Amino acid sequence: MSETEEKTPTNSAVQNLECTYCGKTYNGAELHNTCPACGKVLYYRYDVQAVKERLKRELLPGRVASMWRYKEALPVLWEENIITFGEGWTPLLEAPRLGKKLGMKNLLIKDEGQNPTGSFKARGLGMAVSKARELGAKAVSIPSAGNAGGAVAAYAARAGIAAAVMMPVDAPIINKNETAVTGAQTWLVQGLINDAGRILKANGERKGWFDLSTLKEPYRVEGKKTLGYEIAEQLDWELPDVIIYPTGGGTGLVGMWKAFDEMEQLGWIGSKRPRMVVAQATGCAPIVRAFEEGAEFARPWENAQTNSSGIRVPVAIADYLMLRAVRGSNGTALAVTDEEMMDATKEIASLEGLFPAPEGAATLAVLRHLLAQGWVSPEERVVLFNTGMGQKYPEFMSFDIPVVPADTQFLD
Amino acid sequence: MSETEEKTPTNSAVQNLECTYCGKTYNGAELHNTCPACGKVLYYRYDVQAVKERLKRELLPGRVASMWRYKEALPVLWEENIITFGEGWTPLLEAPRLGKKLGMKNLLIKDEGQNPTGSFKARGLGMAVSKARELGAKAVSIPSAGNAGGAVAAYAARAGIAAAVMMPVDAPIINKNETAVTGAQTWLVQGLINDAGRILKANGERKGWFDLSTLKEPYRVEGKKTLGYEIAEQLDWELPDVIIYPTGGGTGLVGMWKAFDEMEQLGWIGSKRPRMVVAQATGCAPIVRAFEEGAEFARPWENAQTNSSGIRVPVAIADYLMLRAVRGSNGTALAVTDEEMMDATKEIASLEGLFPAPEGAATLAVLRHLLAQGWVSPEERVVLFNTGMGQKYPEFMSFDIPVVPADTQFLD
Ligand SMILES: Cc1ncc(COP(=O)(O)O)c(C=O)c1O
Ligand SMILES: Cc1ncc(COP(=O)(O)O)c(C=O)c1O
Ligand SMILES: [Zn+2]
Ligand SMILES: [Zn+2]
Repeated sequence: MSETEEKTPTNSAVQNLECTYCGKTYNGAELHNTCPACGKVLYYRYDVQAVKERLKRELLPGRVASMWRYKEALPVLWEENIITFGEGWTPLLEAPRLGKKLGMKNLLIKDEGQNPTGSFKARGLGMAVSKARELGAKAVSIPSAGNAGGAVAAYAARAGIAAAVMMPVDAPIINKNETAVTGAQTWLVQGLINDAGRILKANGERKGWFDLSTLKEPYRVEGKKTLGYEIAEQLDWELPDVIIYPTGGGTGLVGMWKAFDEMEQLGWIGSKRPRMVVAQATGCAPIVRAFEEGAEFARPWENAQTNSSGIRVPVAIADYLMLRAVRGSNGTALAVTDEEMMDATKEIASLEGLFPAPEGAATLAVLRHLLAQGWVSPEERVVLFNTGMGQKYPEFMSFDIPVVPADTQFLD
Repeated sequence: MSETEEKTPTNSAVQNLECTYCGKTYNGAELHNTCPACGKVLYYRYDVQAVKERLKRELLPGRVASMWRYKEALPVLWEENIITFGEGWTPLLEAPRLGKKLGMKNLLIKDEGQNPTGSFKARGLGMAVSKARELGAKAVSIPSAGNAGGAVAAYAARAGIAAAVMMPVDAPIINKNETAVTGAQTWLVQGLINDAGRILKANGERKGWFDLSTLKEPYRVEGKKTLGYEIAEQLDWELPDVIIYPTGGGTGLVGMWKAFDEMEQLGWIGSKRPRMVVAQATGCAPIVRAFEEGAEFARPWENAQTNSSGIRVPVAIADYLMLRAVRGSNGTALAVTDEEMMDATKEIASLEGLFPAPEGAATLAVLRHLLAQGWVSPEERVVLFNTGMGQKYPEFMSFDIPVVPADTQFLD
């Protein structure tokens, strides 16, 4: 927008940045990636009193049906800088038929497949593109398992800034198409998301790219935290007993954890937390392994293999934050096979009509184990995260469908 | 639900069914397909006074973010019979960068790709499955170009009723997957949607299927009409000057036309109507041809060909209703090529970040012609319908993306 136009404040109560590891603070009005002192993850902090005054819970029902309904608790300062397709405020669906089969009374699925670009990546990257641009970024880069690339490409195009995306050569075709169609500079790497991250970083300074790698900047998590705000609002400010989340880089998991703390400070919820469950694939389960080993950080996973592309993430900078959330909530971490995800996909689709992404299906497979172990009891309220549309994964499973000629008379 | 549970009324003010052609009326509480007297399309009528009293416009801002916000003006009688994933209440996005390129000030895109199953078919078929089941249907069948099949499969699974779907053998792979994954009985026909319709109909009675073919039952259009209600509400009850709609069977077009009449009776809008524009493909343009010929009905299109699968519909029972809406609004009808749709896809994606379905892209290609002809003037407010996600059409266009090795140092 031109300098002479009027700007409308969002009334954001955002303040400085704080390192989640060493505690050092930084100016929130400047572009930042990781903590200059220790290299770990930075988080925005807010003026809680100001949020309280500006955003009364009672105002929410009349607000926009997107994550921007919580704008006072989000970092963008000016309405004109919000790049949006209406991401967020997705339904928290009851799953009565699936619940019945599992013997459960209170099973819910947060359907993030209904976001723009068909995955929950729209929240984090809508926020990251909006805020990074507000702070002066002219171009952004992202290494992606697939969905994040598609989302960045979409928001960058809408914002009118350049985007560079690199994803594994065997990422889903749909992710490749949705990225390339926007005109974003796109590459496929003969490797994994961490290879893409390294190559982009090595070229970023020369190219003028602001690096949007998962949690290597403090903006994306501010979009993802709205998952936590929404679940609370949708459940009338009573958090569920258990949340099962398909975990790659972990932004959604740590974002919700941040949201719960913020909402408690606001007096919107009490101190009760859901038990946070990390769902990973047996072929790539660094956080599960670290949880079991009692480690603070996770070792990189060698030869990561799963067709559940979004959780094929061998290294994550936020490992310690995920492990804190899981341990701090008396949660757990579990890995399931791709076969279990395929079965779970069909189970959710046939009983509830929802075609989940493989990552979303993983949460049901994990739930089955937790029920069998007695770790989840049948009357508990459990939220599964379907983080994307199954429609975006034509490679994940195939279906035999009979072909009939046009002059067919009888169908049996 | 069991007989002993309490049921909650929706306060629907629905009344009888009326034939849109011969005017005969029928009991709205019985399952119906087409008019028993003349074979044409039946519409529900409402007790306008009752809707007025029960659904004040001022109530809407606090209502659910789905098409069910208008439930008093929809036919389902009991809340428990609403089968929903949260369909509808999709964003009406501003398209400033695309508008600027076209020299326009008021260009809007209704993004129906954000519906459950990724297309606007969720509205009509969510309604059709809900209402047909409320009236006793135990199984449904549908011939589909693709998206409708996926939507029926989803809602039928969620409702716990059987579904039979037949689509062309060259329908998009994503539509095949999303249908089959639910366990719906699915066939691919070596022909087009009308062949599928004929085969399913011939088997329907024996199989006990209620036929959900486009406008061959009166329920689907009640879901689609919410497009009209939403556009009015989102534009503060001031309809746009022009609406461009990618037209196959035409449910959305005639649905909006029905909504405008209903809203005028309710006193929510005046008598001004948008000029309704039918967008079709040059390889399958029966309504465009009928419009040009001044005919009341459209002749079947021979050898229909377009990769824009949703508008590859050679025959439509609602031809006369579409032509009435187009003529009654001083609208027009225009066909564009698949190449134009590909260019338009890239144009929308690169300027607005939205990856449209080919059918949605067709509306931009049509707009370009109408601007060039002076039929649309630059200051008019125009709504383009993006009826689905481009992500669902991997066959429609392909992209060359460079592949790099994992040890790449420099990107150029
Ligand atoms: C569908 C889907 N689910 C889950 C994930 C993992 O998300 P996160 O990196 O926030 O852990 C991804 C990441 O690409 C994804 O695309
Ligand atoms: C994406 C899309 N757009 C448009 C259409 C045409 O819709 P209608 O049959 O309501 O004219 C379809 C139908 O399949 C579709 O799937
Ligand atoms: Zn630090
Ligand atoms: Zn009749």
